Amino acid sequence: MRLLKGNFIYSIDKNEIEIKKNQYLLVKDGKVEGFYNEVPSIAKDVKVEDYKDNIIIPGLSDLHVHAPQYAFRGMGMDMQLLDWLNTYAFKEEGKYKNLEYAKKQYSKFVDDVKNSATTRLSIFATLHKDATIMLMDLLENAGVKAYVGKVNMDRNSPEFLSEDTIESKEDTIEWLEQIKDRYKNIKPILTPRFIPSCTDKLMDEIQNINKKYKLPIQSHLSENTSEIDWVADLHPDTNNYAEAYDKYNLFGKENKTIMAHCVHCPDDELNLIKQNNVTVAHCPQSNANLTSGIAPIKKMLDMGIYVGLGSDIAAGSSLSIFRAMSDAVQVSKLREAMTGEKNQILTLSEVFYLGTKGGGKFFGNVGSFEKGYEFDAIVLNDESFGDNSDFTLKERLERIIYLSDDRNIVAKYVAGNKVI
Amino acid sequence: MRLLKGNFIYSIDKNEIEIKKNQYLLVKDGKVEGFYNEVPSIAKDVKVEDYKDNIIIPGLSDLHVHAPQYAFRGMGMDMQLLDWLNTYAFKEEGKYKNLEYAKKQYSKFVDDVKNSATTRLSIFATLHKDATIMLMDLLENAGVKAYVGKVNMDRNSPEFLSEDTIESKEDTIEWLEQIKDRYKNIKPILTPRFIPSCTDKLMDEIQNINKKYKLPIQSHLSENTSEIDWVADLHPDTNNYAEAYDKYNLFGKENKTIMAHCVHCPDDELNLIKQNNVTVAHCPQSNANLTSGIAPIKKMLDMGIYVGLGSDIAAGSSLSIFRAMSDAVQVSKLREAMTGEKNQILTLSEVFYLGTKGGGKFFGNVGSFEKGYEFDAIVLNDESFGDNSDFTLKERLERIIYLSDDRNIVAKYVAGNKVI
Repeated sequence: MRLLKGNFIYSIDKNEIEIKKNQYLLVKDGKVEGFYNEVPSIAKDVKVEDYKDNIIIPGLSDLHVHAPQYAFRGMGMDMQLLDWLNTYAFKEEGKYKNLEYAKKQYSKFVDDVKNSATTRLSIFATLHKDATIMLMDLLENAGVKAYVGKVNMDRNSPEFLSEDTIESKEDTIEWLEQIKDRYKNIKPILTPRFIPSCTDKLMDEIQNINKKYKLPIQSHLSENTSEIDWVADLHPDTNNYAEAYDKYNLFGKENKTIMAHCVHCPDDELNLIKQNNVTVAHCPQSNANLTSGIAPIKKMLDMGIYVGLGSDIAAGSSLSIFRAMSDAVQVSKLREAMTGEKNQILTLSEVFYLGTKGGGKFFGNVGSFEKGYEFDAIVLNDESFGDNSDFTLKERLERIIYLSDDRNIVAKYVAGNKVI
Repeated sequence: MRLLKGNFIYSIDKNEIEIKKNQYLLVKDGKVEGFYNEVPSIAKDVKVEDYKDNIIIPGLSDLHVHAPQYAFRGMGMDMQLLDWLNTYAFKEEGKYKNLEYAKKQYSKFVDDVKNSATTRLSIFATLHKDATIMLMDLLENAGVKAYVGKVNMDRNSPEFLSEDTIESKEDTIEWLEQIKDRYKNIKPILTPRFIPSCTDKLMDEIQNINKKYKLPIQSHLSENTSEIDWVADLHPDTNNYAEAYDKYNLFGKENKTIMAHCVHCPDDELNLIKQNNVTVAHCPQSNANLTSGIAPIKKMLDMGIYVGLGSDIAAGSSLSIFRAMSDAVQVSKLREAMTGEKNQILTLSEVFYLGTKGGGKFFGNVGSFEKGYEFDAIVLNDESFGDNSDFTLKERLERIIYLSDDRNIVAKYVAGNKVI
């Protein structure tokens, strides 16, 4: 059991933020038991972790991040998606064949993740099986919980970053066998890079693998108009990009799925996302950096589509999901300002939900402090912003979202374990 | 004399970045003398300040910042301009009548400015004369150079933040007399808040004051469509918002002028800006936060209009002009993505120019390391981003713009003086 004292703030739903000022939170078996005004009798022997006037929120979820691109984040921000992939991303990912290089760069990535407010991630590695296992080992040791995918890609990439269909299939199976029962916190996720990178034959093989392993899936969807046109050429039998995944049973339904971006989805695609319970990873910074556009998140939320946030390192430069929250508000305002369409603007409550409970949903009962939720939490000290005595707890939360960095993080818990 | 060693990066013009790798820079009487491969004989007795592999760039200029709003930055980000002013900004500014409150909050602002990469600022205080002088005193002690304005506003504000026309005029003159010869680094700037806050009579008085004092001017222009409509109602004899300043001789020409925002300027207004040599303060974060829109900066630069960057605290949440640079790139991309207009996207070179030499121009020969420029400089250590051995100096600069915070600042110089 754990007993924490402080000011707790969490989402009930996208429109409601719950605030527990100066209360005790009891954690039992890694899960939230409840709030109390005084030490409850069942916990009278538990040492209180007293965080005084600090603010305690659920850990944040990053639904879309390319770990091997972390080393060059903040660079090459003058290109659109397809050029950027060829010039920067593929070149860097090719280096992860070298395990020594992978260890150096992945260690830096994992250190920075550990010191961030993020407790759950869904991560793209590279196509390299051994480097992917190394990343998973490092993450396990850091104490965060994550899905990690060995990337599948057997076409339209440079020689130094390619695998043939059989190799891709066999390496994936070998990878899955090697990591079986290896981790407590880290799990595999199937990761066809995106439709232009995967032949029909490879998509078939991935579908076959999943018949046996029953894994979640992650990929990219409708990020950029040139990409969408390309997919339409590659799959002339489909009505939209999503159907190119769906025809291989790699788009939600029984297979829990994250699709990153969804900037330019036509209505029938949004309907399929909704119908198949696919989770959208909204990556506002990436979508600005690569001139992709602004996803209609308000519309998705109104449709009841599951949405969370992604840093999308390195098309996004910042690993911070707080930054993704404030970016999501800002770009939603620019969507309204530039299109003239009404009801586009995301509220504080909505983006706080997206970064916590909305994204956390992909990992189970994660991202809230309601009873039974896994206890992922971040303790934040906001004194560096100046005197906060005139502000409400909700105002202090907004300031944390706009102003905080890793220096404001006092402690971090993942599923009940204190990791910093 | 000062002799610095390191990697120097600076703008020649908006399209050209000059890089001096591992060189010596000689500073004489606070001004750049030149670059050398080895210690020049005239400086053989000067101690070398050796910054090794660090990157040294010109100090950044913040052309638009409301110091009294710093205390509530990152809050109330759910409103547009006119509601936000009434609900948050005016309420907070009213508190600066109390000098003790002003001292506490201005000290925090000035401390954070001092530790930032900004060396030059143009600042709005409040209408309170004494608190404005206190802010100027604190800035002088911090070693940065700034223009500071006592705000004029005699209509359309709440009772607790108002002055009548005569009071506004007399307080302004008293303020100017009291600070005469008081500062080495800090200068006054005339600051009619914006047209809706200033009666015609007050604009007349400010014009009269300037006939005697010959000061620069700062204000707001064409930020928000409701504001623009309001100004058109208030000044039915004008063809555009700018003319409402220009008819009082408070819009450039012999009076060096900064106009913040300029998001929605019609062509005749842009032409007047150009013709009168008015400097535009582009505040991308503010313009997103208040749903104002995205200013057509590329067009302004193509017209030869002077442009610099502003944090616009607290409509902008971040004091960092590096953040303003990356925001400027990002929103320019979203402008292109959302309007379909071509040639909207700002380059790295352009935003680096805007934050250094472009904004610096308002302060004289500031913002570059060309011979004769005042030596404002920031020394940056980028080791926290990870191994940079594969990157060019220009790539490292881009990463500093996207990723750095105050922890990366190793040293700071203003007009030849080391301030941190």
